[in-house]
Amino acid sequence: MSPDGRRSDRVALAIGADMWTICGVTPDLQELFSFLRFPSVSTDSRHADDVRACAGWLVEKLSAMGLAAELHETPKHPVVIARNEHAKGRRTVLIYGHYDVQPVDPIELWTSPPFEPEIRDGRIWARGATDNKGQMFAHVLGVEKTLKETEGLPVNLIFLFEGEEEIGSPSLSSFLLHHCDELRCDVVAISDTGMVAPGVPTLGYGLRGIACCEAILRGPKQDLHSGLFGGAVANPAAAIARLVSSLHALDGRVAIDGFYDAVRPLEDWERHMWSHVPGVADADFLKVTGSPGLFGEPGYTSAERTWARPTAEVNGIGGGYQGEGSKTVLPSQAFVKLSFRLVPDQDPKDIMDKVVNHLEWHCPPGVEIEVVTGHDGKPYITDPNSAFGQAAQTALRNAFDAEPVLIREGGSIPIVQTFRDILGADTLLLGLALSDAQVHSPNENFPVENFEAGIRLNQSLLLELAK
Amino acid sequence: MSPDGRRSDRVALAIGADMWTICGVTPDLQELFSFLRFPSVSTDSRHADDVRACAGWLVEKLSAMGLAAELHETPKHPVVIARNEHAKGRRTVLIYGHYDVQPVDPIELWTSPPFEPEIRDGRIWARGATDNKGQMFAHVLGVEKTLKETEGLPVNLIFLFEGEEEIGSPSLSSFLLHHCDELRCDVVAISDTGMVAPGVPTLGYGLRGIACCEAILRGPKQDLHSGLFGGAVANPAAAIARLVSSLHALDGRVAIDGFYDAVRPLEDWERHMWSHVPGVADADFLKVTGSPGLFGEPGYTSAERTWARPTAEVNGIGGGYQGEGSKTVLPSQAFVKLSFRLVPDQDPKDIMDKVVNHLEWHCPPGVEIEVVTGHDGKPYITDPNSAFGQAAQTALRNAFDAEPVLIREGGSIPIVQTFRDILGADTLLLGLALSDAQVHSPNENFPVENFEAGIRLNQSLLLELAK
Repeated sequence: MSPDGRRSDRVALAIGADMWTICGVTPDLQELFSFLRFPSVSTDSRHADDVRACAGWLVEKLSAMGLAAELHETPKHPVVIARNEHAKGRRTVLIYGHYDVQPVDPIELWTSPPFEPEIRDGRIWARGATDNKGQMFAHVLGVEKTLKETEGLPVNLIFLFEGEEEIGSPSLSSFLLHHCDELRCDVVAISDTGMVAPGVPTLGYGLRGIACCEAILRGPKQDLHSGLFGGAVANPAAAIARLVSSLHALDGRVAIDGFYDAVRPLEDWERHMWSHVPGVADADFLKVTGSPGLFGEPGYTSAERTWARPTAEVNGIGGGYQGEGSKTVLPSQAFVKLSFRLVPDQDPKDIMDKVVNHLEWHCPPGVEIEVVTGHDGKPYITDPNSAFGQAAQTALRNAFDAEPVLIREGGSIPIVQTFRDILGADTLLLGLALSDAQVHSPNENFPVENFEAGIRLNQSLLLELAK
Repeated sequence: MSPDGRRSDRVALAIGADMWTICGVTPDLQELFSFLRFPSVSTDSRHADDVRACAGWLVEKLSAMGLAAELHETPKHPVVIARNEHAKGRRTVLIYGHYDVQPVDPIELWTSPPFEPEIRDGRIWARGATDNKGQMFAHVLGVEKTLKETEGLPVNLIFLFEGEEEIGSPSLSSFLLHHCDELRCDVVAISDTGMVAPGVPTLGYGLRGIACCEAILRGPKQDLHSGLFGGAVANPAAAIARLVSSLHALDGRVAIDGFYDAVRPLEDWERHMWSHVPGVADADFLKVTGSPGLFGEPGYTSAERTWARPTAEVNGIGGGYQGEGSKTVLPSQAFVKLSFRLVPDQDPKDIMDKVVNHLEWHCPPGVEIEVVTGHDGKPYITDPNSAFGQAAQTALRNAFDAEPVLIREGGSIPIVQTFRDILGADTLLLGLALSDAQVHSPNENFPVENFEAGIRLNQSLLLELAK
């Protein structure tokens, strides 16, 4: 697979004496590697051609499998749609994925080049290995296998692959609106979330929403000498600190009036199940984050805090001198970048109204405040024990030969809500990502066994959903 | 003075039809410009050679005037000493200044490049124009003029110019100790403080002290995804905000235990005089700073707050994402840079002990704190009506042809206390800086008329002190 002997050596060293070290990398992996070699970085306009080429490669692959595959233009990066021949009376399943990837910087921290995939320690190392090329391509290969092994697929299938997920899916809502008839489906499946631990199949049935804003406090018209003026005029950096500290009570609860009003309490069965989910105990959170201690809303475990309770997070704070040593300056302004993770049934617009009111009301004297609101997305929840949810659980059980756990996710996937709003379909989150997959970071990786389980998962899932 | 015609045009436009628009910039100004062109930024090691070159240029200039000038090495930046021939029975006057300057960032806010001085609107625009090259060089030229016009100086003169003032004068105390015999003097004069208003001669008899520190809060071992982990681990950026907000009560008083214990109350005559000093009313502070409102310790005017009351200032705060837009990150650490301005009889070591105790005690849960203490300096006060004080008042009256006002200063010049401790001499503060001089900020400037008055002031001062 490589013109120099080096990579093959590494493969042989890394994974020991199982079948495919002898045969070399399997054809499935070779094909995934071809997919991973496209530097389809959607945020970087220098890679626009690479993103397009990657979409073209996908269309060829899907067509070769016998699907009707089409590349659809958007204002930015193409959407790829593929479908089998649809038959009346069968379930229609939409499988979503994205073929764009995050940037790779800091490039110097990668052990192997991000767009030259290789296998080490039983994992595939490349940008996009987990997020999302590896996971979505397992579904593609699962469909290919089923098509080879049987007469056809048991369901009406729609593959929907976009190239703008990592930049916030700016074209997708409009695309769905314009193609809602042909994309109408009974259920959506996505593998773009996490597994709680290696070998533990995980069904996600909830996601947090989000609402973002930035507050800028302005004081003196320019930075002042803190000796000459300190004490007489408000210091925007001190004021931003006071403003930010007003967002939380001392015990960690969010102190914005009405913030928790619409929060749906945790169900007893959720708290019970989550207390038994491996890999998400408080001790695991401490270990994974390396934090000196846990801190959050009283009365909840770390998993409950991240999956089912809303937060107010400071993503960035700044003002005044940022360099080495000291500079006795009284800064003219300071800022804070905030994001709020939301849970059912909080509404992002309502929460942002409350946030803006809070920030304006608590703005300290002597400074002027400007609040700039950013992107938002609704929280999501579905019933993991619905017919489709049970089908997903069975498929996960079959693919991993283990009992699946049911979780929510702390992150936000706004398109899940969009699928519900526009297509009227709920989404099954069949995550294959491990917590140390380094998504969005250097040395992204994906276990070969998860890739192979993903192929089995797809085959079982389509069968189960057809029932 | 400039290879392109542009700058000369600006000069001609800006200052109208007085003598030197016709002749071009005077030789005195040309020499000051040469001095200002050295980017002698003492805090930035990349400018170490520039600081040294600037010191060398000074030695040459002072030698050419007929003084015995020497460059003295220190662990960092050189000290320049120059003296006339000393005679017994005459007063010995030490004139102190500093040839190092503050950094220039944010560079993009400068109208003209900080190290390419130019004249606009009757002012000299450059980093160091006021603080302190312009003021100290007026003394140099005053001495040069007296030496040219008369037999010699009326006093034994010592020029002491350092290159580390903007980084807290780390070498100066030790230098004074090692050279205290040759530097022994009756009185020290410094022009590195403010004039209350244009044309109002100002004698400073008090300075605030300072104590600096930086607190760093550390949480997770690396930046985290705020969706996946937000809510479960303490956010260092939120924690730094809470910590900083603990430094002040809501009404603006410093909330550190015992902070005000040693503060000497204002004298009645001071409050009375200051209420009549032009240019320092609350309305002036508002106008000069451009702040939306005044804010500070209750019960004091702005002048009293800055001259005679201590403060806790945030010079810089930072953590997490600093770029455009949003990034949903939970930062691994955050910092705050603090400085405390102190008044008689607060002791910097005692205050820093109290600050460190406060910061450690108030550190929020879930993060680790490190406090790095920085430079400090004692506050200073002397009697403005002593014999030397009265000589200074006379010299100011002569140079400006107006009645001087007596004030304290909000800034810190720790070496003034060091002169008292090591040389046993009090210091006269003959400030020439205007409140809109933008010292430590972009677009620092110095009025040409203050530069010229400074030359006259030096000549009169040496005569008066000789009496």
